[in-house]
Amino acid sequence: MYNKKEDMIKKIDHLGFAVRSIDGARIFYEQVLGLRCERIEEVASQQVRTAFFSLGETHIELLEPTGPDSPIAKFLERNGEGMHHIGYESDDIEGDLARADEQGCRLINASPVAGADNKRIAFLHPRSTHGVLTEICQKETPCDR
Amino acid sequence: MYNKKEDMIKKIDHLGFAVRSIDGARIFYEQVLGLRCERIEEVASQQVRTAFFSLGETHIELLEPTGPDSPIAKFLERNGEGMHHIGYESDDIEGDLARADEQGCRLINASPVAGADNKRIAFLHPRSTHGVLTEICQKETPCDR
Repeated sequence: MYNKKEDMIKKIDHLGFAVRSIDGARIFYEQVLGLRCERIEEVASQQVRTAFFSLGETHIELLEPTGPDSPIAKFLERNGEGMHHIGYESDDIEGDLARADEQGCRLINASPVAGADNKRIAFLHPRSTHGVLTEICQKETPCDR
Repeated sequence: MYNKKEDMIKKIDHLGFAVRSIDGARIFYEQVLGLRCERIEEVASQQVRTAFFSLGETHIELLEPTGPDSPIAKFLERNGEGMHHIGYESDDIEGDLARADEQGCRLINASPVAGADNKRIAFLHPRSTHGVLTEICQKETPCDR
């Protein structure tokens, strides 16, 4: 049943929460949970504005749409605000995608694409992950550039 | 804007994912992500069976309903499988609840109740947390008992 290998996922890199407005939602994370917003970054290609909060070894990422065609705008239309995706840190994203493919997972990205924060990322479709939109991400190292 | 205090949330204790069947869903977590199921525990009062996977400093908890009146059964009816809640570890759950209340959060549990794994837990309503069902939890120490 178990098939533990050495090079698989080690930790949760971040959790992405869809919000209508970062300015509205950050009050909860700052004033109730006591987290600190590290930075706000706009990803123009995704029509999304993101706010990052550090929490232990992981991050919470608030995702606000900046245009009507943003995937986050569509998510909000269908579901309202809430949990959007989970991002797992990998040190072998190609290997992890190959294994997911072998296991019959539907890959949204068959190979990694550029993400925020100098990472390479790829998504697995929620139909293959029991409803959880799943991102695998790997930090680029200087020799990858 | 920032109001950082010392005794607030330090880390994510767990993420709860609603699944129709632990036996079906664990294959993804074991064979694709390479995680190991630490234990399976039934919480009869909640009509739920849970499977815990350790991942860095946090855990993934799969939640399977064991009866039609289970909150997880109702969640699955409305939403299908997917992310259900996030649990933050606190070392002052009463203080955190008081602060949430002061900030106008709607508390599902006004004071902590007994949860799995020898913890005291309380939920904040998703209407107050931008759509994310939020649990605050604290491990009981021997002197609490």
